[in-house]
Amino acid sequence: MMHLVTLSPLNQVRLLWVGLLIVKLTLPTAISAQKDPWAEDKAFLQELFKQSLADGKAYPWLRDLCHGAGHRLSGSIGAEKAVRWAKAVLDTCGLDTVWLQPVMVPRWERGAPEIVEILGTPKRKSLRLPALALGGSVGTGGKAVVGEVVEVRSWEALDSLGKQGVSGKVVFYNRPMECRHFNTFEAYGGAVDQRVFGPSRAAKYGAIAVLVRSMGLALDDYPHTGTLRYDSAYALIPAAAISTNAAERLSALLREEGNARVSITLNCRTLPDVLSYNVIGEIRGSLTPDKILLVGGHLDSWDVGHGAHDDGAGCVQSMEVLYRLRKLGYRPRHTLRCVLFMNEENGLRGGLTYAAAAEENEEVHLFALESDAGGFTPRGFSFEADPEIIDYYFEQILHFEELLRPFGLMFWRGGSGADISPLRGQKGLLAGLRPDSQRYFDFHHTTADVFEAVHPRELQLGSASMAALIYLIDKYGL
Amino acid sequence: MMHLVTLSPLNQVRLLWVGLLIVKLTLPTAISAQKDPWAEDKAFLQELFKQSLADGKAYPWLRDLCHGAGHRLSGSIGAEKAVRWAKAVLDTCGLDTVWLQPVMVPRWERGAPEIVEILGTPKRKSLRLPALALGGSVGTGGKAVVGEVVEVRSWEALDSLGKQGVSGKVVFYNRPMECRHFNTFEAYGGAVDQRVFGPSRAAKYGAIAVLVRSMGLALDDYPHTGTLRYDSAYALIPAAAISTNAAERLSALLREEGNARVSITLNCRTLPDVLSYNVIGEIRGSLTPDKILLVGGHLDSWDVGHGAHDDGAGCVQSMEVLYRLRKLGYRPRHTLRCVLFMNEENGLRGGLTYAAAAEENEEVHLFALESDAGGFTPRGFSFEADPEIIDYYFEQILHFEELLRPFGLMFWRGGSGADISPLRGQKGLLAGLRPDSQRYFDFHHTTADVFEAVHPRELQLGSASMAALIYLIDKYGL
Repeated sequence: MMHLVTLSPLNQVRLLWVGLLIVKLTLPTAISAQKDPWAEDKAFLQELFKQSLADGKAYPWLRDLCHGAGHRLSGSIGAEKAVRWAKAVLDTCGLDTVWLQPVMVPRWERGAPEIVEILGTPKRKSLRLPALALGGSVGTGGKAVVGEVVEVRSWEALDSLGKQGVSGKVVFYNRPMECRHFNTFEAYGGAVDQRVFGPSRAAKYGAIAVLVRSMGLALDDYPHTGTLRYDSAYALIPAAAISTNAAERLSALLREEGNARVSITLNCRTLPDVLSYNVIGEIRGSLTPDKILLVGGHLDSWDVGHGAHDDGAGCVQSMEVLYRLRKLGYRPRHTLRCVLFMNEENGLRGGLTYAAAAEENEEVHLFALESDAGGFTPRGFSFEADPEIIDYYFEQILHFEELLRPFGLMFWRGGSGADISPLRGQKGLLAGLRPDSQRYFDFHHTTADVFEAVHPRELQLGSASMAALIYLIDKYGL
Repeated sequence: MMHLVTLSPLNQVRLLWVGLLIVKLTLPTAISAQKDPWAEDKAFLQELFKQSLADGKAYPWLRDLCHGAGHRLSGSIGAEKAVRWAKAVLDTCGLDTVWLQPVMVPRWERGAPEIVEILGTPKRKSLRLPALALGGSVGTGGKAVVGEVVEVRSWEALDSLGKQGVSGKVVFYNRPMECRHFNTFEAYGGAVDQRVFGPSRAAKYGAIAVLVRSMGLALDDYPHTGTLRYDSAYALIPAAAISTNAAERLSALLREEGNARVSITLNCRTLPDVLSYNVIGEIRGSLTPDKILLVGGHLDSWDVGHGAHDDGAGCVQSMEVLYRLRKLGYRPRHTLRCVLFMNEENGLRGGLTYAAAAEENEEVHLFALESDAGGFTPRGFSFEADPEIIDYYFEQILHFEELLRPFGLMFWRGGSGADISPLRGQKGLLAGLRPDSQRYFDFHHTTADVFEAVHPRELQLGSASMAALIYLIDKYGL
């Protein structure tokens, strides 16, 4: 029930004023209490993604890089072109500084196409297999290495064959990548030891050469190259990857005929190290310029295809992060630095050189983000840091995940990127962009990894996702 | 400090027994208190995804459907083949019942390939444009419709042209899908009104035919067909989609030359309705068989390509959900039903017939899940229900999201699927599988939507995701 009081007209007016005053004083508070404190950031992120999709730079830049420089193994003409191209593009992005950081890199050349053949028998013709020498392999000295094939699917099988079973033969590693893994990088991790360590472990028992089933989940005719690591305690023997279809065929033939001989001709060789560069651009921070947020990928690639997914994508995305934030008029508090590393594929010299120089110059990297898992739709980021501090970091950034969820992004703990891993000692936070991994190993290190295999929207979403994370970390710190 | 007591040997043994008893009684409790209560479900889901990736059925089934039946517009031979094929496959899946539900469907035929040409002038030759009649369009009566083109990009532009600007002409709708949207279905939703309503809205002003820019985000040469909706108040005029490249070209020519005439020949026609079927299979529930959990897609497609993404993918995924749960030995509490709907594309008769029959038979659908957004990597599920109850439902299922997160899945509120939407009146929960949408409109309703455009792992992950959600809802209810 209302309590009624009769008021004079003047008092009625006074009461009205008081009422309005109360409304005036309380309403804005009430509204701002309801107002989303993240509204400005949400609007910024929306605009960032929209610009990246409607007016993206990464995709046309990737076309230029792939069609202009082509593949770009460290020390090659393509790599040299890529360095010049990247520097020139960054020079147009309105950054504060763009420079080249010298790096001495290994130089390995494939030479004339490799020939791997299953030798014929009186009953059947010889058969040439799609093959690529492994990066860093020795050649076969201008002639063919011929030998009987012995297939193994595990290190145990190799060890139990021993010298008696292996000496003088060609070891054929045929353990497939395990398709049951949801994340294809796990499948890769579970099989790539054959490629990396296989040659020396076979040489230990006197093998004369090695063939490796390609690292891929699809059955196809694309051989996948990639690096090997020789153990100098044993003979350096030639090693090549054959396509998954070829591996199936060779294995079937061994089952059917009991044995098979192959002929392997590799024309590859290692030359002296040459000078190359990391390409770096930065926007100087307005508040704490001595603290760096790094974003990067690697500019080198294998010497087949365009290196479009691996890792042209990561380079152009990183370049666009700085371009885009500049274009949006964002003034970063920290120094934002884009680093295009040289020689991730066969030496990591760019990453090591960069980290050593950072150490020497007492540069502090609060955060580093690498994109080196393909130009596919981004699914989120994985984060790593010193075990002592990762819990703290992860808690700090977890509320950013909510802001990035509308763009389909999740946060995990996990690896970051090879090039930025030497920065781990600085105790900053390291992250990797995690694109959808399902198709990656259909392209990785093969002639199929071309510009045309990258989808414009997927690539641009990656770039926008990276810019979004950099923006949030820059604005709110860690 | 320990309090020591001297014990006789017998008492020592007794004490040992007591001690062991205490250990026996407390240890399991202590362990189970620490034990993850979801451990069993997590293991089940892991196994489900692994089996789906290693021994998937959806992918080989999709090959059979696409290469065996081909495209399958309602009332076509392909649709008839698909019904027989799906029934035969479900018959091998160890389900409790498999049956066909009769549905009368519209029958529209494209006839001989359509011809859409920009007519030549003394200065240039005529130019044929990649085109597809819109589904349901009338034909041009065995001759060409020729007229001047008037381009519009909005309804306002059409209305302001009015009868004077449109009468006797061919209206060319050229408002592109908006690429700035993160979700391409939003972009589709913002442009598809031109295709659906364009013909009759142009006919209202006396237009003689309609050309529509294809619904796609890429600039390419694939015209996209799709349904139109005539308003019987106006003349039924012929309508075709031209490819996005063709639309750009026609628009440029109109800008350059001020006008252009086109010739349109469509040989399509609508025939009397024919009998077809929804294909249904179920596993009867062990606890509450009267409550149904439905999973489905639509078996019909447009009459170009294979209808692989739209929606062969959704069908084979739904079929595998029941197959996979059976194979894993899971005994469902509720009745699990797989429904392959007929005629989603141009009538929704299958969905309407199914819902009407369910109503008549007093069947209760606690949950229905549709996959009809392509066979790409699943990103999660969107859920809808009666507004009164959606909050409750969403809270009920939110803890499932945590269990599905390792497989990259998120939950949103949003639409479910066209075929299951007539079940909304039952007040159950409806959901749609949400695959990555970035590439979908490169294929949707075009000749490019073929089996080969579907990635085996991406398709299988969709099937596993659906089975995982059905498992959790079946086990824990709503």
